[in-house]
Amino acid sequence: METELINKNLSAKDLLTTWKTLTSSQRRVKFLKLDKLDQEIIWMNVSSNYQLEIYKELPYKIRHLFIQLLPPDDIAELIQNLEDAMKPFVFKCLDSSTLSEVKAIMAFAEDKAGRVMNPRFARLRPEMTAEEAIRYLRMQTNSQVETIYYAYVLNQNQKLLGVISLRELILAASEKTINQLMKVDIVTISQDEDQKDISKAFSNHNFLALPVVDENKVMKGVITLDDVVEVIVEETTDDIQKMGAMETLGGPYLDINIFTMIKKRAGWLMALFIGEMFTASAMSHYEGQIAKAVVLALFIPLVISSGGNSGSQATTLIIRAMALGEVRLKDWWRVLSRELFSGLTLGVILGSIGMIRILLWPHREILYGEHYILVAMTVAFSLVGIVMWGTIAGSMLPFLLRRLGLDPATSSAPFVATLVDVTGLIIYFSVASIFLKGILL
Amino acid sequence: METELINKNLSAKDLLTTWKTLTSSQRRVKFLKLDKLDQEIIWMNVSSNYQLEIYKELPYKIRHLFIQLLPPDDIAELIQNLEDAMKPFVFKCLDSSTLSEVKAIMAFAEDKAGRVMNPRFARLRPEMTAEEAIRYLRMQTNSQVETIYYAYVLNQNQKLLGVISLRELILAASEKTINQLMKVDIVTISQDEDQKDISKAFSNHNFLALPVVDENKVMKGVITLDDVVEVIVEETTDDIQKMGAMETLGGPYLDINIFTMIKKRAGWLMALFIGEMFTASAMSHYEGQIAKAVVLALFIPLVISSGGNSGSQATTLIIRAMALGEVRLKDWWRVLSRELFSGLTLGVILGSIGMIRILLWPHREILYGEHYILVAMTVAFSLVGIVMWGTIAGSMLPFLLRRLGLDPATSSAPFVATLVDVTGLIIYFSVASIFLKGILL
Repeated sequence: METELINKNLSAKDLLTTWKTLTSSQRRVKFLKLDKLDQEIIWMNVSSNYQLEIYKELPYKIRHLFIQLLPPDDIAELIQNLEDAMKPFVFKCLDSSTLSEVKAIMAFAEDKAGRVMNPRFARLRPEMTAEEAIRYLRMQTNSQVETIYYAYVLNQNQKLLGVISLRELILAASEKTINQLMKVDIVTISQDEDQKDISKAFSNHNFLALPVVDENKVMKGVITLDDVVEVIVEETTDDIQKMGAMETLGGPYLDINIFTMIKKRAGWLMALFIGEMFTASAMSHYEGQIAKAVVLALFIPLVISSGGNSGSQATTLIIRAMALGEVRLKDWWRVLSRELFSGLTLGVILGSIGMIRILLWPHREILYGEHYILVAMTVAFSLVGIVMWGTIAGSMLPFLLRRLGLDPATSSAPFVATLVDVTGLIIYFSVASIFLKGILL
Repeated sequence: METELINKNLSAKDLLTTWKTLTSSQRRVKFLKLDKLDQEIIWMNVSSNYQLEIYKELPYKIRHLFIQLLPPDDIAELIQNLEDAMKPFVFKCLDSSTLSEVKAIMAFAEDKAGRVMNPRFARLRPEMTAEEAIRYLRMQTNSQVETIYYAYVLNQNQKLLGVISLRELILAASEKTINQLMKVDIVTISQDEDQKDISKAFSNHNFLALPVVDENKVMKGVITLDDVVEVIVEETTDDIQKMGAMETLGGPYLDINIFTMIKKRAGWLMALFIGEMFTASAMSHYEGQIAKAVVLALFIPLVISSGGNSGSQATTLIIRAMALGEVRLKDWWRVLSRELFSGLTLGVILGSIGMIRILLWPHREILYGEHYILVAMTVAFSLVGIVMWGTIAGSMLPFLLRRLGLDPATSSAPFVATLVDVTGLIIYFSVASIFLKGILL
């Protein structure tokens, strides 16, 4: 293990892949043993939580060198993640122009476009020729401009007029003006736009970078696709963890402190447990029925879990469809009609299997009593009702949550299952009293 | 609605966003009413399932024009998705060089790098100067080369020697040779690499494009980040749908035929239902105990669902951590020890709440009988056991599935819950017989 990284002359790819599989204590020890180039490759290419970890390990006297390697958006992210006491030092390491860029970025809330964007981009004037533009870009472009795959054409007031890709510029006849060459039908992002909407804008198009503008179309920066990929992956992880009924971890599983992780899991588990307590209350309501017909108790887990499972399916489908923008709030009615039909069909399928299972089981009369046919009917009809109810509850809950301004992903499979368990018991015992009243009950 | 798209002079962004929110029948009707430019914007920028839909609506005599607009990788995708009878026509529309490119792409399995890559890329020779290179790219690059953000340096045998970004080329002194300028420490993708690994390679780096090579380092094509974003989003959707216990839908929720959707959901629901039937068998085993102490039945849903919920959490966490490469097969032991401790802690928390709930409940002696303290102990100790078991089963199942070569995402929350329900009942009644033997049982 000790020699996995050091003096191995690994390619950048292998270096980074190996890096991420180390434990956080291994990473801490090893970083300082790497040669300078490898240190820089790692520092520049890992995501912000790793950068924070590395930064804290760096000897005080070389910290400023590492800070100066980062673009302003990464510096803002690092400052954000640092403890308050460590923040002033970072500001002190910045030259005045970087400092003002970092401060401008930090003025935006963490999930806004203004925060993710890079304020350094390649600028052109509309009246330049293609040849002048290339020469101008050569002068203008120093290591500070992150992306010049696109150059942005601005007027004197920094208003965005058009965009031209570096490729188009190179292919163009040298004497043509930027005005003639640039694309004016531009997809832009507002500086107040949300991360979720930004990632949607990128998924709807095939752009590698999009310009960020303010309300007057004044260009403020660019967001590149590689920033967005990180956002998409992070957001999906958050969604998935919520769907698994826990608070989002916010870091790699093996690196999260175990007590922090337990805390993030315990909250939802306790809430679900307290919700599930209503099953005990519902059951005590039916205690008399169970005492008279113990056979009813046998099928309780089977019947209520089917509601939970069908509800989990439905909620998972709808949450993801919402996240991808395939289903919007106003589609609730179309979804409801689809899910009503699906729930009915699925309920009939499971009900039939349940009925057959009881009717054909060996020793059915000994196990389920002489009225096993009525028991089978009870189970089958309850299943139809419960699966339908689970499907509808599971599919409508994300709409309800979004309508209330909450995150639809909160309607996790366990949440829906808990909700459906309590009502499932009521459906089951109500159906039972219809079929078995005067016979077993 | 009718006028939402047509004659509105929408920007490309709004056009595409609006497009995706239409129903598939609206899209079919409207496409042909759009003006040619808007048709092309949509055609070139939507994902492959939308392209297929559009293609089938096109009048026969203009189909070849639309096909010729697409790059070879998109054409291959379209052919793949078409019914067999419609495939030959597409091949006939291609010129001979495109035809051979499309055929080369289609020789790879659908999830391999060779299938996703674009075989058209910008090539340079190492001995050129920067100035010659720019001139050469201008000549070489026509509308056929999708990406020239990077140019690839090849020797006579098409072996990949290095890479240079267009930006570096423009910034370089004109007389320097490509040999001096190019980066030789190149991250490459093998043409047989899996989509999952490709998306990991991109997430581990900040590249906009990566070269695809064969086993002799001969360059075959490039994969650009925008292709990968689609792959990442698709794969996550597949994972999430599996985690919700269904087959992957493979298309937007509202567009999927309802019977296809029901079929994809019914399979897993039936399997889970049949698995859950073991609860009925387990329960009949304990029928005598329930008859003697009906109070035990009251807590069955509460106790077993807690196992399911804690298992769902654990499995969700591990599946996602595996998908992100944070946890590998060989980490199972570290995960197990974390989950043992987490499960114990969470079990003790829920057990304590359950105990307090029973001990402090009004009318506890009427509801739960004179031995309510022993009932409370039974519930509390069962909870510790069941939550621990759920946590361990949920966290280890993804490892087991991956070890068997199956997709870890199959260990969905409902799957784990079903597994834990049966064993949960056994734990519960075993604990009950320890505490209540000779008293209630």
